[in-house]
Amino acid sequence: VQHPRSTLWWSSQRDVFILDQTRLPFSIDTVPLCSAEDAARAIETMQVRGAPLIGITAAFGLALQARHQADDASLQRAAETLAHTRPTAINLRWALARVMRAVEAVSTEERAERAWQQAVLMHDEEILHCARIGEHGGALIADIARNKRSRVHVLTHCNAGWLATLRWGTALAPIYHAHQQGIDVHVWVDETRPRNQGAQLTAWELQQAGVACTIVVDNAGGHLMQHGEVDLVIVGSDRTTRTGDVCNKIGTYLKALAAKDNDVPFYAALPSSTIDWSLCDGVREIPIEERDANEVHFVAGEHGPARVTPIDSIAANYAFDVTPARLVTGIITERGVHAATEHSLALAYPEFAHG
Amino acid sequence: VQHPRSTLWWSSQRDVFILDQTRLPFSIDTVPLCSAEDAARAIETMQVRGAPLIGITAAFGLALQARHQADDASLQRAAETLAHTRPTAINLRWALARVMRAVEAVSTEERAERAWQQAVLMHDEEILHCARIGEHGGALIADIARNKRSRVHVLTHCNAGWLATLRWGTALAPIYHAHQQGIDVHVWVDETRPRNQGAQLTAWELQQAGVACTIVVDNAGGHLMQHGEVDLVIVGSDRTTRTGDVCNKIGTYLKALAAKDNDVPFYAALPSSTIDWSLCDGVREIPIEERDANEVHFVAGEHGPARVTPIDSIAANYAFDVTPARLVTGIITERGVHAATEHSLALAYPEFAHG
Repeated sequence: VQHPRSTLWWSSQRDVFILDQTRLPFSIDTVPLCSAEDAARAIETMQVRGAPLIGITAAFGLALQARHQADDASLQRAAETLAHTRPTAINLRWALARVMRAVEAVSTEERAERAWQQAVLMHDEEILHCARIGEHGGALIADIARNKRSRVHVLTHCNAGWLATLRWGTALAPIYHAHQQGIDVHVWVDETRPRNQGAQLTAWELQQAGVACTIVVDNAGGHLMQHGEVDLVIVGSDRTTRTGDVCNKIGTYLKALAAKDNDVPFYAALPSSTIDWSLCDGVREIPIEERDANEVHFVAGEHGPARVTPIDSIAANYAFDVTPARLVTGIITERGVHAATEHSLALAYPEFAHG
Repeated sequence: VQHPRSTLWWSSQRDVFILDQTRLPFSIDTVPLCSAEDAARAIETMQVRGAPLIGITAAFGLALQARHQADDASLQRAAETLAHTRPTAINLRWALARVMRAVEAVSTEERAERAWQQAVLMHDEEILHCARIGEHGGALIADIARNKRSRVHVLTHCNAGWLATLRWGTALAPIYHAHQQGIDVHVWVDETRPRNQGAQLTAWELQQAGVACTIVVDNAGGHLMQHGEVDLVIVGSDRTTRTGDVCNKIGTYLKALAAKDNDVPFYAALPSSTIDWSLCDGVREIPIEERDANEVHFVAGEHGPARVTPIDSIAANYAFDVTPARLVTGIITERGVHAATEHSLALAYPEFAHG
């Protein structure tokens, strides 16, 4: 097994592997995926996470199922199992629908090959989309650097880097792009409780890439913005409505409010696979996953989980929140930077908007 | 040593003891304070914390010093040592000034007794003030309960309960008062990273008192408010300006923004010892303590500190932020519920406002 430079890869024999993200940064382990069930388990246990990566992992899960048994019932069952792993990220449903459409068009014998090729195509597309997001968002950072003539400070929440995708990332792609162009960029990394994806994944990624970064608790962003320490906020998204409401990791909404209150631009970076064209009102319509309370009770540390709450205490664990479009300065996709409005997104994606 | 039902107490021989709050809820230990240095160390290491309690602990520290050596130079030195332990909580400076004024009025021989009596007086006053805050704030909760005719949900950040004071607390006093009156009240307890005073102190306190509560990560409050799950927010304060800007645990500002955005009333509860009558602009003028980055790198768990960030990563640790008065619905003090304006606070405290 090769050393991971990606989050999901395959051998020439088409054995699929993922990087186990539950143990990062303390241990770098790879896990083979041999079936749709393996893929579903990897998504459910968050060995893979991040909306774009979840989608591609599900696509490969369905391709693995097609290799084993390619009749309609078998594929439908596998697609349902995969779809039920996590409720919020729309990319999961989008990816499964695309693979299903591809295989339904061909005979049972051709489906294994067809599903595999579709998954690989989507994998390649997603990388390309992230690279484009990097270019479009990188231009925003370059603009600020030109005007400011000193270090640009970006705040990000959760992990929307290459670990959440396949390469580059969404929210981090513009940062990597700017860094590669020699722009002096520094990232405030929100810890991102309860699972600490900021402290444990984003900080690790940026450190590896040589990008300056400072971890802060999720509580700190407002204070930093009040004191002019943040030039822009960039986050990813797990589902964005056609009207520009951005669902992302719990706590994103609080940062968007602080950005608005301090005139700091707030951007969401996402591939179009994250846009749910059927939804209009994010706060009312996007299902918010409620996860195991033990993610709050126990913190994942270097030496395993450590209890941080009193015995017998009760905790609730909402995984995402929705930032209303009125708080979003712009949405960065593979096609450019758009206003967070139905009109602007429809102009950029006429084929979906009028679909 | 008696089992602590308070945060600071003394024997008939005037030996002073505190509850060590750094190990709660996993271990209940008491620590003797024999000198001003002991008191300074207890404040600095956060064995005692919470603005009102810090003030009273400093007062007893100075009283212990007066018992050892009561000349001006010795007391000045001790007062300076105590004042330098923590920069943000104004109660510390207020308490030291009051004891100094009391001892300066009498001869060196009388100072030990005078300082002790002053500290005890302030201790008793602070308890009375917290009880009054409970009554005034409890009436707000009772009003909501009457209108709503179902469970009242209060969100609080950090710990401003009896552990932060001597009894009752500030933000929690209204909750205890309402609970004792039979009102069905439930508390959303913000975890409060990095030191987890919510998860480890507030949840423990409320649990002991039989008040229903649910721990959530600091990121969750906005989502809860968007979905009508919070009827009011009550927090404490470490320093409040005469204009009503509220400095409190880092992250409070983000909750105030979310409260405003969702029409949820946001109250700060504080004894008048927390008001800094000399300050006008909280964001610009209140010094914000920056603490050791290891509080972010290591989480205090049941079995000691657990590292949660990558090795060699950098973290910053701002301990407080300032919520501008425009986001504060009201300030609850021992004298009532006041608008967060210079006019309203001056009406309630004419002796300080015109001092």
